[in-house]
Amino acid sequence: MSSLDTAPELDVTQWFNTPEPMTLGALRGKVVLLHAFQMLCPGCVRSGIPQAQRIAAIFPASEVAVIGIHTVFEHHEAMTPVALAAFIHEYRLTFPVAVDRPAGDGPIPSTMAAYGMRGTPSLVLIDRAGRVRRHSFGAEDDLKVGAEIGLLMAEPM
Amino acid sequence: MSSLDTAPELDVTQWFNTPEPMTLGALRGKVVLLHAFQMLCPGCVRSGIPQAQRIAAIFPASEVAVIGIHTVFEHHEAMTPVALAAFIHEYRLTFPVAVDRPAGDGPIPSTMAAYGMRGTPSLVLIDRAGRVRRHSFGAEDDLKVGAEIGLLMAEPM
Amino acid sequence: MSSLDTAPELDVTQWFNTPEPMTLGALRGKVVLLHAFQMLCPGCVRSGIPQAQRIAAIFPASEVAVIGIHTVFEHHEAMTPVALAAFIHEYRLTFPVAVDRPAGDGPIPSTMAAYGMRGTPSLVLIDRAGRVRRHSFGAEDDLKVGAEIGLLMAEPM
Amino acid sequence: MSSLDTAPELDVTQWFNTPEPMTLGALRGKVVLLHAFQMLCPGCVRSGIPQAQRIAAIFPASEVAVIGIHTVFEHHEAMTPVALAAFIHEYRLTFPVAVDRPAGDGPIPSTMAAYGMRGTPSLVLIDRAGRVRRHSFGAEDDLKVGAEIGLLMAEPM
Repeated sequence: MSSLDTAPELDVTQWFNTPEPMTLGALRGKVVLLHAFQMLCPGCVRSGIPQAQRIAAIFPASEVAVIGIHTVFEHHEAMTPVALAAFIHEYRLTFPVAVDRPAGDGPIPSTMAAYGMRGTPSLVLIDRAGRVRRHSFGAEDDLKVGAEIGLLMAEPM
Repeated sequence: MSSLDTAPELDVTQWFNTPEPMTLGALRGKVVLLHAFQMLCPGCVRSGIPQAQRIAAIFPASEVAVIGIHTVFEHHEAMTPVALAAFIHEYRLTFPVAVDRPAGDGPIPSTMAAYGMRGTPSLVLIDRAGRVRRHSFGAEDDLKVGAEIGLLMAEPM
Repeated sequence: MSSLDTAPELDVTQWFNTPEPMTLGALRGKVVLLHAFQMLCPGCVRSGIPQAQRIAAIFPASEVAVIGIHTVFEHHEAMTPVALAAFIHEYRLTFPVAVDRPAGDGPIPSTMAAYGMRGTPSLVLIDRAGRVRRHSFGAEDDLKVGAEIGLLMAEPM
Repeated sequence: MSSLDTAPELDVTQWFNTPEPMTLGALRGKVVLLHAFQMLCPGCVRSGIPQAQRIAAIFPASEVAVIGIHTVFEHHEAMTPVALAAFIHEYRLTFPVAVDRPAGDGPIPSTMAAYGMRGTPSLVLIDRAGRVRRHSFGAEDDLKVGAEIGLLMAEPM
């Protein structure tokens, strides 16, 4: 997908760290950072997930929503929801995390496919109007991500 | 000084990495990041100076001007301009660096005093209109600094 | 257990990264570094496992044997052998790794119990004669561990 | 110089962090780690000097002597003894540091020339009998250096 498209709604099966399921629709008006990861992806554990944690800690939740999405596309038998629950506990993740819906007919789960993600970690920034403004794969520089969040925060609702 | 004041003009004796002296006045319209350091300050060498280098590398020079200022307030006999030249060379600094003007009657140099800096590293963010918008002392988080630069970049001239 | 005791033999159910099962008995004459970890233990992933990898890379295998042992004592349903296989693959571990034998009647697996380990990561250094010479819990300094390996290497068989 | 030669005596002009000048001759019986650095050498500041500090902190002074030697071969006007004093103070170095004697006729100081050092940081390990056992240039792995110190400590006097 190209950017400036409306962000596809999340298609997930389960949530952690939130009292009830979340939707992008209900988050209109906020900047949303979607962090797609796999719990056994070394680059996610080393850089992507800690960055998402820092973003959730630094920016006010009323302005910026951080959502993790567990997009398992390999080692499905190892990265089950019960294993993810242990991972979230051990790494003390506090932001909401959703489990991407497994596809009926292939390894790529539903939301990952809808966004055309190339792997994990992937970072998607969605503006207050619900449009994708950044979509990237791999480790991202804190300064750059911070500046993009700042630019999106500066936009009127 | 409180923030939202107009940033005092730099009062310096010498420049490196720029063909001619710079003034804040001539930078109106750009976001300016002023990084005050001492070459023998471990916190500057470890975090402040590399952060300034990264900012200079990441943001377009047409939008964000990074200026280093060598605010020597201790060990004056060690941190001379000739020593600073060697330091800039060895650490491969590429952004413009000015030497703060020594005071006639005390250890604190002129620009450092005008800004009321508490030590090094200090970070000052100046908006497109020339007003101080952030003034901080010590190591600063990349995400936070990035977001503030992004917010200032989003402001109209 | 106190140090200078003979190291208890490994009691494990499965091996990775080795053509056939290993025993401490067969390693007499070499210095053995036993690294006990859990794949979802953040301290193991961040420091213990990379240290074990570096030790395996730096010291000649003819002198120093590095053995990982997956001592699962919590989140048993998440850290199964099939999940461990994925973890070893993703983190590109190359040293032999054994799966500690689950206890019949409690969370602590067999080898972990025999060594009296307090948690993960744990590090055990065994001398050429098969005696435990270091037994520690938590992150360990490379210089210190290196020196202890050097001291044990210097001992005659 | 090749290794296994007797380590040339230090030829220095000044000492810091020691009540009186030190000589390799008087250190016979101990393992000696000689760390050659320049205060404006980024690799020294980032890795070599902190490693020397850690070694001095970890190993008993009765067994291992850590000596820094400021081997200035460039930017002589910046790296004067008075600047070195400020550097030692700011970086809180606690091990003894000597100033290598400037040559009468070239940039390379006396001790640096006698050891045939190629630059900074350089690391020299001297055994209890006063012989050079390691001589290296550049960043060195803690595990490897630790093991070599351990091996030398294990040798009888």
